[in-house]
Amino acid sequence: MTKPNILVGQSGGPTAVINASLYGVITEGLSHTEEIGTIYGMVHGIEGFLAGNYLNLSQELHANDLELLKITPAAYLGSCRFKLPEDFSSPVYAALFERFEELHIGAFFYIGGNDSMDTVSKLSQYAAAHNKTIRFVGIPKTIDNDLILTDHTPGFASAAKYVAAAVREITMDSCVYHNHSVTIIELMGRHAGWLTAASVLARKHAGDNPVLIYLPEIPFSLEQFSHDIERVFQTHRAAVVCVSEGIHDADGKFICEYASSAQVDNFGHKMLTGCGKFLENYVREKFQIKVRSVELNVSQRCSSMLVSRTDIEEAALAGSFGVQAALSGNTGCMVAFERDSSHPYQMHCALHDVTKICNQEKKFPPEWITKNGTDVSDEFLEYVTPLVLGEVEHVMENGVPKFLYRENY
Amino acid sequence: MTKPNILVGQSGGPTAVINASLYGVITEGLSHTEEIGTIYGMVHGIEGFLAGNYLNLSQELHANDLELLKITPAAYLGSCRFKLPEDFSSPVYAALFERFEELHIGAFFYIGGNDSMDTVSKLSQYAAAHNKTIRFVGIPKTIDNDLILTDHTPGFASAAKYVAAAVREITMDSCVYHNHSVTIIELMGRHAGWLTAASVLARKHAGDNPVLIYLPEIPFSLEQFSHDIERVFQTHRAAVVCVSEGIHDADGKFICEYASSAQVDNFGHKMLTGCGKFLENYVREKFQIKVRSVELNVSQRCSSMLVSRTDIEEAALAGSFGVQAALSGNTGCMVAFERDSSHPYQMHCALHDVTKICNQEKKFPPEWITKNGTDVSDEFLEYVTPLVLGEVEHVMENGVPKFLYRENY
Repeated sequence: MTKPNILVGQSGGPTAVINASLYGVITEGLSHTEEIGTIYGMVHGIEGFLAGNYLNLSQELHANDLELLKITPAAYLGSCRFKLPEDFSSPVYAALFERFEELHIGAFFYIGGNDSMDTVSKLSQYAAAHNKTIRFVGIPKTIDNDLILTDHTPGFASAAKYVAAAVREITMDSCVYHNHSVTIIELMGRHAGWLTAASVLARKHAGDNPVLIYLPEIPFSLEQFSHDIERVFQTHRAAVVCVSEGIHDADGKFICEYASSAQVDNFGHKMLTGCGKFLENYVREKFQIKVRSVELNVSQRCSSMLVSRTDIEEAALAGSFGVQAALSGNTGCMVAFERDSSHPYQMHCALHDVTKICNQEKKFPPEWITKNGTDVSDEFLEYVTPLVLGEVEHVMENGVPKFLYRENY
Repeated sequence: MTKPNILVGQSGGPTAVINASLYGVITEGLSHTEEIGTIYGMVHGIEGFLAGNYLNLSQELHANDLELLKITPAAYLGSCRFKLPEDFSSPVYAALFERFEELHIGAFFYIGGNDSMDTVSKLSQYAAAHNKTIRFVGIPKTIDNDLILTDHTPGFASAAKYVAAAVREITMDSCVYHNHSVTIIELMGRHAGWLTAASVLARKHAGDNPVLIYLPEIPFSLEQFSHDIERVFQTHRAAVVCVSEGIHDADGKFICEYASSAQVDNFGHKMLTGCGKFLENYVREKFQIKVRSVELNVSQRCSSMLVSRTDIEEAALAGSFGVQAALSGNTGCMVAFERDSSHPYQMHCALHDVTKICNQEKKFPPEWITKNGTDVSDEFLEYVTPLVLGEVEHVMENGVPKFLYRENY
């Protein structure tokens, strides 16, 4: 009989290492010539696949392409934000499994975050209920680091390393003048503060900037914030403040809403701005000093300028381990990381029931938040530092990093 | 008799390579043990020096410090935005020259842009009028690349390389989804479009994003912009648009003013936003599609994540050439770059009258702007590409680049 084929897709927001996981799935798949036939890739995730959009990766990618793919940011296969219906009698399921069978798919790998794991969960439940033998495995991916039952998620470390380096550079920039100033840096993480907490890595020594760090896990008070600013001015000429985009007050109202609810431009268009911009204007009015806000924006998730070698290798490992898991008969599971030790750093992969993981959120531990919610503890530093170690050498082309991309990109 | 000492300062906005020029001045100065005594550094430029704030760099910096200084972004000595009075009878001049003589200064080096060159010009004019023998030399520095009589300025190439890499990454991020989208990237350059033009380096192939590039040299029209967007949607699913922060309409009104003049937040504070944010809201309202704006902000000038090796070496060369020029008896001049050829790239340093340079602005050449003001020509690509070539290896510390900074930083 013919060998079963495998199908892999990427979903949700891009990261600097989601393609390293794709590399892991492909290279591991290619190494099992006895058990695996063709490796197919969904274009634009499950949504694109439903529309008949997929690639033959075994044919399309050659050895040198794969090495470039491993260090290419964003999502090579494209992505989607598509949630499968709760109702398993929806024709979507029958249509999907029909396509799976047309392509003789034996295993399905989905690289993504919470919503993507929901897809893996539902497909594996449908398969179980309909005696389908296809195996479904989730490969974790999110810069937010908010998946449960795993020590951390691929993508977080490279985003953390980028944030640390950018905050350190912006701090040095903000310290060149003699006068008092406040620089507010808005970081990603709407519900979980992991990435904002990583800004602590920017400190060159104890007491250094960023001197105030606000996570969404602690309710934010403008009054307390203004007291905090007054306090740090006693010790810092230039204060750098890192805030999560998701900070909100005790009533759950996002700070960014304080600004955007009222703004309309000259043409009557509603203006949407972030909490950093709002706090910039608040500080300017309140303290009458030089203030600036910087939103690191999507570069946090897609920049490959300074990725973590540890992250890249672990992302690839998650992909290859997922293929091995499926070949061993596992389904309805997600690859997870378990930390053996931090000194020296050692981890290994494990499997967990994807249904337990999807739609859950791992918040930043409250016990790692210090100084009345304006700093993070050394325990977090110990946790995060090993993850950001190591660099990757770029392939350069006319002075700019070269990446792998599809022709019709 | 005792050997004369030299004094060096940094002024204006930081760059990724302004410390490489400082490295050049110090290392060249140290090599002339017969002719130069102590090397002093002004802290926070001429303003800090007036207040008696300076360092003995000969004592403070050792060989390994200097190598780290060469790759450290921002301004090691600190900076200022201080314009000397037009009236030469102002006591400021007498006070400055008194300090110069106290420190037995034979040569003064100021690393900066237009305003800093104005300082060099005035000090050299005052010296000439009062028979002072101190020599005054300007070392160019600006990411804006807007100084006249020089092929380019140190700092521009590294900013251009950062912009190119960031725009390429953001483009890949914006292309992962299947639906139509517009991503607007706001770049620095209030009056000159050099840095925004450098976004063309992000293209992976002809016709690639960024598909629209708007410089401040061409009046911006919202109506034409909306036609341009409609046009590119015929060929691009995801359109990436690069705009200079300084784009303005035919009446000279900045596009960012379209937004900020009307905005007030819930607390009655005036909200200041950029043209990118305004255009984001404009496109959202007009086309009802997914749109996002990204402001690369100060990282353009201070990021060392991906600096140009060519820029670093040329910045150091400008510093050392300046010292040689002063020792040869030159004063009232600025170090300039002259390009001998682009294939292969070759340049040499020259000297120009700083009084001719200061307070002038080199705009982006109109003949290099194409497609009715939405693109730049291959002549610019030929001009800029050699400048961004080569990379620098970081010194890493816990996964983050390590820099040199003053203790009281």
